[in-house]
Amino acid sequence: MKRFVLLAIIIILIVPLTLFGQTAKKAVTPPVSSQTAACIGCHKTYTPGIVEDWQKSLHANTTPAMALKKSSLERRVSADKFDASVANVVVGCYECHSINPTKHKDNFNHMGYKINTVVSPIDCATCHPVEARQFSGSKKAHAYGNLTKNPVFSSLVDTIVSVKKIENGKVIQTPASASTRHETCFACHGTEVKVNGLKEVDTAMGKIKVPALSNWPNQGVGRINPDGSLGACSACHPRHSFSIEIARKPYTCAQCHLDPDVPAWNVYKESKHGNIYFSKYQDWNFKAVPWKVGKDFQAPTCATCHNSLITTADNKVIIDRTHDFGARLWIRLFGLVYSHPQPIHGDTSVIKNKDGLPLPTTFTGEVAETGLISRDEQSKRQKTMQGLCKSCHTTQWTTNHFVKLENTIKEVDNMTLSATLLLLEAWKNNLAEGLIHGKNPFDDAIEQMWIRQWLFYGNSIKYSSAMTGAPDYATFKNGWWNLTENLQHMSDWIEFKKTSKGSVKK
Amino acid sequence: MKRFVLLAIIIILIVPLTLFGQTAKKAVTPPVSSQTAACIGCHKTYTPGIVEDWQKSLHANTTPAMALKKSSLERRVSADKFDASVANVVVGCYECHSINPTKHKDNFNHMGYKINTVVSPIDCATCHPVEARQFSGSKKAHAYGNLTKNPVFSSLVDTIVSVKKIENGKVIQTPASASTRHETCFACHGTEVKVNGLKEVDTAMGKIKVPALSNWPNQGVGRINPDGSLGACSACHPRHSFSIEIARKPYTCAQCHLDPDVPAWNVYKESKHGNIYFSKYQDWNFKAVPWKVGKDFQAPTCATCHNSLITTADNKVIIDRTHDFGARLWIRLFGLVYSHPQPIHGDTSVIKNKDGLPLPTTFTGEVAETGLISRDEQSKRQKTMQGLCKSCHTTQWTTNHFVKLENTIKEVDNMTLSATLLLLEAWKNNLAEGLIHGKNPFDDAIEQMWIRQWLFYGNSIKYSSAMTGAPDYATFKNGWWNLTENLQHMSDWIEFKKTSKGSVKK
Amino acid sequence: MKRFVLLAIIIILIVPLTLFGQTAKKAVTPPVSSQTAACIGCHKTYTPGIVEDWQKSLHANTTPAMALKKSSLERRVSADKFDASVANVVVGCYECHSINPTKHKDNFNHMGYKINTVVSPIDCATCHPVEARQFSGSKKAHAYGNLTKNPVFSSLVDTIVSVKKIENGKVIQTPASASTRHETCFACHGTEVKVNGLKEVDTAMGKIKVPALSNWPNQGVGRINPDGSLGACSACHPRHSFSIEIARKPYTCAQCHLDPDVPAWNVYKESKHGNIYFSKYQDWNFKAVPWKVGKDFQAPTCATCHNSLITTADNKVIIDRTHDFGARLWIRLFGLVYSHPQPIHGDTSVIKNKDGLPLPTTFTGEVAETGLISRDEQSKRQKTMQGLCKSCHTTQWTTNHFVKLENTIKEVDNMTLSATLLLLEAWKNNLAEGLIHGKNPFDDAIEQMWIRQWLFYGNSIKYSSAMTGAPDYATFKNGWWNLTENLQHMSDWIEFKKTSKGSVKK
Repeated sequence: MKRFVLLAIIIILIVPLTLFGQTAKKAVTPPVSSQTAACIGCHKTYTPGIVEDWQKSLHANTTPAMALKKSSLERRVSADKFDASVANVVVGCYECHSINPTKHKDNFNHMGYKINTVVSPIDCATCHPVEARQFSGSKKAHAYGNLTKNPVFSSLVDTIVSVKKIENGKVIQTPASASTRHETCFACHGTEVKVNGLKEVDTAMGKIKVPALSNWPNQGVGRINPDGSLGACSACHPRHSFSIEIARKPYTCAQCHLDPDVPAWNVYKESKHGNIYFSKYQDWNFKAVPWKVGKDFQAPTCATCHNSLITTADNKVIIDRTHDFGARLWIRLFGLVYSHPQPIHGDTSVIKNKDGLPLPTTFTGEVAETGLISRDEQSKRQKTMQGLCKSCHTTQWTTNHFVKLENTIKEVDNMTLSATLLLLEAWKNNLAEGLIHGKNPFDDAIEQMWIRQWLFYGNSIKYSSAMTGAPDYATFKNGWWNLTENLQHMSDWIEFKKTSKGSVKK
Repeated sequence: MKRFVLLAIIIILIVPLTLFGQTAKKAVTPPVSSQTAACIGCHKTYTPGIVEDWQKSLHANTTPAMALKKSSLERRVSADKFDASVANVVVGCYECHSINPTKHKDNFNHMGYKINTVVSPIDCATCHPVEARQFSGSKKAHAYGNLTKNPVFSSLVDTIVSVKKIENGKVIQTPASASTRHETCFACHGTEVKVNGLKEVDTAMGKIKVPALSNWPNQGVGRINPDGSLGACSACHPRHSFSIEIARKPYTCAQCHLDPDVPAWNVYKESKHGNIYFSKYQDWNFKAVPWKVGKDFQAPTCATCHNSLITTADNKVIIDRTHDFGARLWIRLFGLVYSHPQPIHGDTSVIKNKDGLPLPTTFTGEVAETGLISRDEQSKRQKTMQGLCKSCHTTQWTTNHFVKLENTIKEVDNMTLSATLLLLEAWKNNLAEGLIHGKNPFDDAIEQMWIRQWLFYGNSIKYSSAMTGAPDYATFKNGWWNLTENLQHMSDWIEFKKTSKGSVKK
Repeated sequence: MKRFVLLAIIIILIVPLTLFGQTAKKAVTPPVSSQTAACIGCHKTYTPGIVEDWQKSLHANTTPAMALKKSSLERRVSADKFDASVANVVVGCYECHSINPTKHKDNFNHMGYKINTVVSPIDCATCHPVEARQFSGSKKAHAYGNLTKNPVFSSLVDTIVSVKKIENGKVIQTPASASTRHETCFACHGTEVKVNGLKEVDTAMGKIKVPALSNWPNQGVGRINPDGSLGACSACHPRHSFSIEIARKPYTCAQCHLDPDVPAWNVYKESKHGNIYFSKYQDWNFKAVPWKVGKDFQAPTCATCHNSLITTADNKVIIDRTHDFGARLWIRLFGLVYSHPQPIHGDTSVIKNKDGLPLPTTFTGEVAETGLISRDEQSKRQKTMQGLCKSCHTTQWTTNHFVKLENTIKEVDNMTLSATLLLLEAWKNNLAEGLIHGKNPFDDAIEQMWIRQWLFYGNSIKYSSAMTGAPDYATFKNGWWNLTENLQHMSDWIEFKKTSKGSVKK
C-alpha cells in the first residue's frame, strides 16, 4: 500500500515539474541593479512599451556571469571576464545607458543619474567586444562616410532627393535638406548625431532637460554616435529586446536590402530558400546558439550565409560567426556601376580608379588596382561560402551554381557597358551635359535611364543569380526584360532628342 | 497516510483541470437559438465553410448577456442592455440575418424564415452601436459617394477603367462598364447594392428564389446596403469569424491601403515597426481587450495607431477606441493633389475650393477655407497621437519625428507644384487639352505623368516619413528618385511634343 | 482507501499517456533499409542539412505498407500494392535514388551502390502513380518543350535574355547564353539535364567520380530528366522533406506564378482570401488528408482551388485531387496575347491558329479551331469549380462573380486589340520592323510596349478578377491605369517616331 502511495506521489511531483519546469526556472530570475530598478520605477508608467519589451529579453533574464558559464560554442558574449560591478546583475537600463559617460556628449543628469541617450557599439562591446570589433571594420560601420566623403555618390544623393523648381520651363535643382537626406539615403546609411547643449522638453512627468540631439532619431547601420563610435547595433537588434531571433529573420535585413536598388530581400522571398523559410519557419529554432543546420532550420536566412555561427547537429563548426557582413563575400555585386572584388576595408572612400575618381572601376568597367581584395583572397572566401552551401547541396550542384553566377556577372557588366556607350554618345552629341562637360552626370533623362540599368536591373539579375534563383527578378521584374527595354528607350531618346535639337536649331 | 492520499487526489484533480480548463469551458457553450440551429442544419452541408468558420468565432461561443458581464475596459459590445430575445443565445446566423426585415429590401422568405441576404452596420449596431455610429461619420462610410458625387474624381475613374478604341490612329475612350468599375475603384470604395425583385437560382438543394442583387458581391467599406445604411463591417472583420485578430493584423488594411496610390501597407512592411511585427507577431496576443502595449504586442500594427483601445499593462488608458479611422489624424496625406487638414466630416463631397471645384485645395495648392478641421483641432489630434508614440519613444524622439514629417509634406507639395507648372505649360502651348480648354485633364500622357507625381510618388514619400521610415519607399521605390525622374520626363515630353507639333504644322 | 489509490494511479497513468502519446508513437519508428543507413552514415557528416530535413519528413517515419493501411480518402499513396523490397522500410535515400538504374543515364557507382543523381517523376510513381500520370499530361510537364519547340516563344525568350551590343549607335542582339536562359525562363520551365560521362569532383571525402551533368542544377516543373521523364516533383515538394504542407502553402506556387507576367501570388496576397490566410494560417492544418473546408482551413490557398482533394468535415467529397494543374480550368488567362479555352493536352506546341502559327489565337484574337477544349468541356469545368466556391459562398454570389470575370476577360482582350492596331500602324508606317516585314516582332520599343499590355497589365487585371479581387492590381498596379497610360505612350511614340523619321529624311 505504502509503495503505491509513494509511487503516486513521485509521479505527481514529476508531472508538474516536467510541465512547468520552464516557468519554475523563471522564478529564480537574477537580480536587477538598484539603478535599473529606479529607471523601471518611472518608465514602467511613462514608456511602458520599452520596459515590457526589455522584460521579455534575454538581457533582463541573465547576468554576464551566467552568460560566461556556457560552453564556448554556446556563448553569446565574447568578453572573457566582467567587472564585479556588472557581472552579477541583469543587463538593464542603467547597465547600457551609463557606460563611458565622459566620452558620451549625450550624457546628462537625469533624475540624479548620469545617463547616455544613445547606446553605441563601444558600450555594447563591454560584453560583445569581438562583434563590435568585427563590425567596426565593415562597410556597414562606414556607410555614412562612404556616401558623404565620396563626391560622386554625394552628387547622386543630392540630385535625387532635392526639391526641383521650374524656371522658364526648365527643371532647376535646389539644395537637398538635411531632413530629407536623413529619411532617404541616410535612414539606412546613418546620420551624424550631434549634441547641441541641453533643451527643455515637456513630458508627462513635467518639464525636464535633455541633450538636444540633431540628426536624430536614426538607426542607420553607419550612424556616427555622440561618443564618436560608428554604427547602431539596434539597426538589426531592435529596440529593447536585442533579439537574436529578430536579427536572424530576414525582415531585419529587408529594411535596407530591398528592391529596386538592393533587392536581396525580394530575391530571397521568391527563391527556393525563401519558399521553404516562409512555409516552415514557425517550426524552426531562431534562438539556438550555435545554429545547427538541418536541426534548427532547414533553409538559410540572410544571417545563415552572411554572419551566423553554423554547426552540424553534433557541434562540428561549418562556418564561424562574423559581424563584418562582407567578410564572407568575394565580389561586390551591387551599389556600383560594374562588379568588382570586395574592398579590403570597410572605408571605401580611399579607393581610386585609373581616372583618379574614388570608385572601384572606371566609367567603362576597368577595375581599380588598389584597395580591393586579391584573387587569392577571393578564392579563399568563395571556398568558405561553398563549404556552407555543401551542408545541403552536392559538390557539383554547388560548383555549377558558382559557374553560372560568374557568367551572369560578366553578361550584366557587358550590358552596362552598352548603356554607357549610348550615354557617351548622348554626351558627345551635346544631347545631355555630363562628365565630359564637367557637369552633373545624373540629372538628364538619359543619365537616369543609364542609372536604372546598373542600379536597378543589373543588381536584380546578379542577386537573383547569386541567391540561387528568383526567376522573375532575373527575367521580367527589373531583370533582363527591363535591361533590354530600357536600352532601346535610351536609343530612341537619342533619336528624338537629336530631332528636337535639330528642329530647335532650324 | 490519509493526508498523503488526500494531497495526491487534490493534485491529481488540479493538474488536469489546469491543463484542460479551456476545453472544459467549451463544454458549457451557451445555447443556440432554434432558428440558427435550423440554418446550421442545412448549411452545414451546403456551405460548410461558413458554418465551420462561424463555429470557431467568439460569436458562436458567447451570448450578449455574457458579453455585458465584462468590465467596461474588457467589453467588446457597446450596447448597455439587450432584448431578452437576443440576450441569452449565441450570435448566430438568424440573429444577424433577420434584423429590421422591413427596412431590408433584400429580405426574403427562405425555408419559412424571413432572412436578409446582406448584414449591414445597422444590424451590427444591435450589439455594437458606438462602433457603428463612429463609423457612420467616417470617410470610409462615405467612400462610395465621395467618389461618385465628385465630378473630378468620377472623371478620373472613368478615364482609367474604360475600354479604349483606336479610331484613325487616335485613342478614343468608351464608357466604363459597371462591372469593371466594381472590381477596380469600387471594390474598396463599395458599390450600391440594389434589389431587383426575386430570381430563381439553381442550388444543390434544388431551385430556390432569392433576392436578385445587382452590384453584388462587394465588401467595400463604403458599400450602400439594401437597408440604406453605409458600409460593410465584413470589409475588416471577414467572413463569418468576425475576428478582432484579423482586423488588428495589417493584412486586412493592406487590401486597400497599398501601393502605388495608398502605400501604407508597403511602407509598414519595410519600417522598423513592420520588421518587429513580422519577426515576433506569433508570440503576441491579438485578441486581448484592452490591448496592452508592450505586454500584448511590442510594435504597432495599423489598428494600434488608428483605432484600437490601447492601455498599459496595468489598465491605464493610453488612447481610446474609435471606428472613425480618420479621427486621430490631423492632416490628409493621400488621395489628393496637395496635403491639407483632415475634413470635418466623412462626406467630403461638400468641400469647395476657391475655384468652386469640390476639392480641398486649388490646382496650385491653396487650401479650402471651409469643411476642413481647424489648426486647434489639428494640434489636439497631433498631441493625442504623440501620446501613443511616447509609449515606446522619448519625447524628443517623437517631437523630432513630427518636425521631419512636416518638412517632408512641404517639400513634396512643392515638387507637386513644379509638376503642375509643367502641366500648365503643356496646356497653354496646346500640347495637351485639359482644364483650361474645358477638356478631360486626365487623359493625355503628360497629365498622367502629373498624376503619378502626387498619387504615387508624393504619397509614398509622405507615408514613408509619417510611418517612421521605409527608406526605399522614400528614395528609389516610388520615391524621390521617381519624383525627380518623372519631372524630367515631363520636361522632355513637352520638348518632343513641341517638335512634333511644329513639324506637323510645317 | 484502496479504491482512491487505484483511481489516483489510473489517472496518473492516463495523464502522461494523453500528453506524451505522440512522442510515444515516435518511439516505434519503422526500420530504415541497410542501404539507406549506409547513405546516412556518411551524409550525416557531409550534407547534414539534407539528412536532418529528411528525418523530419513523413517519408522517414512511415513505410509504404503502413501508408496502405489508411482509408482511401486519407491515403497519400496511389499505388495499390508494393514489392516486398520496399513495402516495409521507410522511404529513404536509397529507396528513391536507386530506381530504374538502367534508364537513368545519371546512374553511377557511389561507394559501392548504384545511385541516380536526379530523382524523377517515374521514380516517385513507385508509390504515387496516379499523381505522376496526371502530371505527365499537364502543361507543367511540357513547359520546356512548349517554349523551345515554339518558334514565336523562342524568339521572345532570346530577345529578352540576350546580351546586346552597341554598333554605330544601334542596339544589336547577340545570341543568348544557355546559362542565362536557365536562370531566367527555364528556371521555372525546366532545363534538359544531360549526362556527359563522369567527372571527378573534389569533396570533403576526397576526390570522387560523379556523372557530369549539364543544365543542372534545375528544379523547373518541366525539367527533362536523365531517364527521359518530364518534370520535377521537387519543384513543389522541396528538398528532402517532400512536404504536403509546403506544397499547399502559397509561397511554393509563388516562386513562378508572380508578377509582372503571372501575378497569381501577388493578387492572392491582396485578396480577401489572402487576407484571411495570412491572419489565421498558423491555426490551420496543412497536413490533413483529406483537406476539410472550414475545419482545416477557412480560406483557400492555391492548392485548394487548383489541385487538392477537398471534403466537408464529415468526409463528403467536394472536389477530387488532381496533379494536372490545368484540369479544373476552363479558360487560359495568361501567357498569351488573348484569352482562349484551355488546351486539350499539356503539349501546346501542336496548336495552330488560322495563320499557321503555333498559337491559340491569331494576331487579332481569333481563337484556333483545334487543340482547345470544347464549350461543353468549359461549362463542365466551370461548374466543378463553382461547386468548390459554394462551400463558402451562395449560389448568387458565385454566379455573379463568374459573370463579372467573363466581362473583364472580354474588355481586356478588347484593350489588347487596340494596342495591336497601334502596333500594326507602326509596322505599316515602317516606324518599326515586325511580323509584316518578316522581322523580329519583339525588339522595338513599341513592340515591347505592346507586350506589356497583354503580358503584364492584361494578365494582372484578369487574375485580379478571377481570384475575387485585388483592387489595386486591377486598378493602379499593372492594371487599368497602366493599360490606359501605356496605350497613350504607344500613340505618342508613333507621333514622335514619325517626326524623327520625317526629319531624318529631310
